[in-house]
Amino acid sequence: MLPLQGLKIVELGHYIAAPFCTRLLADLGAEVIKVEPPEGDPFRGWGSKKDGHSVWFSVHGRNKLSVTLDLKSAEGQRRVKALCARADAMVENFRPGYLERIGLGPAVLQAENPRLTIARISGYGQDGPYRDKPAFGAIGEAMGGLRHLTANPGQSEYPPPRCGVSISDDLAGMYAALALVSACWGRDRTPDGKGRILDLDLVSSVFSLMEGMLPEYGLTGAIRQPAGAAIPTAAPTNTYPCADGKWLCVAGNSDLIFRRLMTLIGREELSADPRMATNGGRCEHAAELDAAIAAWTKTLPAREAEALLEQAEVPCSRLYDMADCANDPHFRARGTVLPVQDPLLGEVLHPAPPFRLDGVTPAEMVRWTGRAAGADNDHVFHELLGEAR
Amino acid sequence: MLPLQGLKIVELGHYIAAPFCTRLLADLGAEVIKVEPPEGDPFRGWGSKKDGHSVWFSVHGRNKLSVTLDLKSAEGQRRVKALCARADAMVENFRPGYLERIGLGPAVLQAENPRLTIARISGYGQDGPYRDKPAFGAIGEAMGGLRHLTANPGQSEYPPPRCGVSISDDLAGMYAALALVSACWGRDRTPDGKGRILDLDLVSSVFSLMEGMLPEYGLTGAIRQPAGAAIPTAAPTNTYPCADGKWLCVAGNSDLIFRRLMTLIGREELSADPRMATNGGRCEHAAELDAAIAAWTKTLPAREAEALLEQAEVPCSRLYDMADCANDPHFRARGTVLPVQDPLLGEVLHPAPPFRLDGVTPAEMVRWTGRAAGADNDHVFHELLGEAR
Repeated sequence: MLPLQGLKIVELGHYIAAPFCTRLLADLGAEVIKVEPPEGDPFRGWGSKKDGHSVWFSVHGRNKLSVTLDLKSAEGQRRVKALCARADAMVENFRPGYLERIGLGPAVLQAENPRLTIARISGYGQDGPYRDKPAFGAIGEAMGGLRHLTANPGQSEYPPPRCGVSISDDLAGMYAALALVSACWGRDRTPDGKGRILDLDLVSSVFSLMEGMLPEYGLTGAIRQPAGAAIPTAAPTNTYPCADGKWLCVAGNSDLIFRRLMTLIGREELSADPRMATNGGRCEHAAELDAAIAAWTKTLPAREAEALLEQAEVPCSRLYDMADCANDPHFRARGTVLPVQDPLLGEVLHPAPPFRLDGVTPAEMVRWTGRAAGADNDHVFHELLGEAR
Repeated sequence: MLPLQGLKIVELGHYIAAPFCTRLLADLGAEVIKVEPPEGDPFRGWGSKKDGHSVWFSVHGRNKLSVTLDLKSAEGQRRVKALCARADAMVENFRPGYLERIGLGPAVLQAENPRLTIARISGYGQDGPYRDKPAFGAIGEAMGGLRHLTANPGQSEYPPPRCGVSISDDLAGMYAALALVSACWGRDRTPDGKGRILDLDLVSSVFSLMEGMLPEYGLTGAIRQPAGAAIPTAAPTNTYPCADGKWLCVAGNSDLIFRRLMTLIGREELSADPRMATNGGRCEHAAELDAAIAAWTKTLPAREAEALLEQAEVPCSRLYDMADCANDPHFRARGTVLPVQDPLLGEVLHPAPPFRLDGVTPAEMVRWTGRAAGADNDHVFHELLGEAR
C-alpha cells in the first residue's frame, strides 16, 4: 500500500540529518531500524519533554523501530553487520572517518552485503580540505550562501537571522533520501546490482538552492545581495506591519492585482499613474508603493487586513505561527495537522508526511509514534536477526 | 552508471517547483523531457541574460531534453499522451484542475498507461478550502510557519526577511522527486504495478520543517517565537558584527570551545565565572557573552577574526556571498563549483548536483547545460515517438 514497503534501512544516525532522512523513508513505508547507543540518541534530550519523553521525538522517530547497542563492542558490531547484511541501505551521519576507525566502514559492510547502499551525511563531505572541521547546521547555512541573503539591506543593528529551523540538516537529509531510493531503484534493475556509496554534505545541500547566482557571478561578477522581504524584480510585493504588531505578506505585483490592491487601499491615483503601469516601473518606485500599502495595513489588525485583501482577490498571508497552523481550516481539512495517539505522551498533533498518495490517508501514513530507545530490541534481535533467546 | 538511467520522465512544468524536481532526477540520470509552450517556459524570461539566453536556465534546464508544443491543440495533446505512454512518470505544477479542464488529467493519461506515476505540485494541494487560491512562494513560506521564525525578536522597524531563495518551491520539488522515485521503486516490485498519483504542496512542504513545534503546541500551547541569529538553548552561539561591516557566525557553545573562545578574546575571567560553567548558565547570561564576543569581532575584519577563531579551533564562518562560495578552496576541491561549457553562454560555473556518488565525478553528472526551447523537437518527436518526418 505504501510505495517503499519492503525496503529495509538501517540508521546509524543521531541528532537531525540522518534521522530526518530515514523518517521520510519510513513515512513512505520503508522498514527503518534506528540504532542508538544504550543511553539513546542524544537528540532525545533536546527540547520540551513530557514524563521524561522528548516531544519532538514523537515525530522524528515515528514509523521506525529502535534498537540499542554499543557500536564499539563485539556484540554491537556483530549486530550492526547482521542488520546491514539483510538491508537495502544504511544511513549514517558520523564525523567522516569515524565508522572506518571503529571497523564499520563501507568496505567492511559491503564485503558482507555487496547490494548495500550507504548514504553518508556530514557537514562538509567525505573529502576536501574542510572534511574534518566540526559541523554545525548554522555554519552550513552561512557557508552555503543562505545567511548572507536572509537579511534586511541597509540595517546593521541586528544580524541576519537564522531560518529558525534546522534547514541545512533537513536539506541534506532530503537529498540523502532521494539519492538512496534512486540508488536502490537502479540497483534493482540489474540482477547483480551493487550498492552505492553516497556522499551528502550540509554545505552543498544549502548551496544547491542558490538559483542562478553562481553562473551569474561567473559571467558578470555580480554578487546577489539581500533584499529583505521584497523581491527586487517584482513590485509591489513585501511584508507590511499591521496595527496589532503582526506582519502581513502581500503579493500585489501583477497588473490586475495591483489595480485591485490600490482600489482597496483608496489609492486609485497610483494605479492610474503612468509610472506604475508596468512591473518595471513599479519596481523603480517600489518604496513609494510599499509606503502607501504600509500606511493602510498599519491601521488594521493583521487578520482584518488579510480578510479585506482576500475579498479583493489580492494574494496575501499573515506570518503564521504554530497556533495559526494548528488551527487553520485548510491544514485540518487536508490532514496536514493530524491528532495522533502516542503511547508515551497521550494525544499529540503530528505534521502529516509532506507527500499525499492516492489511496492512502495522511493518518494511515503515521503508523506509530517515536518509541523509547531500545523498544524493539527483542523483536529485531530475535525475530528479525534470529538470535537465540 | 547513474542510478536513474532508464527512468523516463515527462515534465509539464513551468517556473520553479516542477522543473527543480525534474532537474534533480535528470542529475541522477533520468531521461527528462521538458514540455514547453511554443514561446518557451516563461521562466526563461527571468533574471540576467547573455545573448538573449537565461543564465539561470543553464542550470535549471541542465540534463533535460526540451520540446515545444501547444497543450491545447490536438497535435500537442496527442504528443503529450504519446510521451506519457512511454514514460514512468509525469511531473506537473499547473493550478489544480487545469490539466483536467484541457483534457489531460490523470484519468486520461493513466487510461493509456496505467504504470504512469503522476506527481502534482501546487501551492495548497489538490483539495481543501484554499486549493484554488493563487500560489506564491513567499506565501508558502509565510503560511508554512517559516517566515514567523526568520526574524530578530524585539525589533519592529524591518519585516522578517525572505530566505532570499525560492525555498518553498525547492522543498516541494525535492519532496516530489523523492515520492516519485519511491512510487516507481514500489511499482517495479510488482509485475502489474500501477502508477500512483502524488499530491505535493508548497505550504505543507515548508510546514514539514517545523521540528517539534506542532506537538509542543498541542501539548502545552507553547508557540515558538523567533530567536534572531541565536539559539535559545545553546550559548554562546550567534552572528557577530565585524570591523568591515560583515557578519561572522560563531558556534562557541560547548564547554571546551567556550573556554578557548574566551581565552582568544582576552576574557578568561568569563570562563572562570561559575555562572558560565554550564550551557544552562551561559544561556541565562547569553546577552553578556554576546556583548563580549561582539566587542572583540568589531575590532577586526571578518576574514581576520575568522582566521583567529579557526586557529583557536572555534567553529565559525563568515556569511558567504557568491564570490566567497565560488572561490572557496573546499568548494573547488569537492567540485561543488564546476566550470562547464555551455554552447549558448560559453564557459559558466554550475553548482554540482548535491549528491556525490562513488564512481562518478560531479563533472560527469552535468552531461549538458539547459538548451533552447524546442531544441530536441526533432529527436523526440521523430526518433523517440517514431513520427514520420
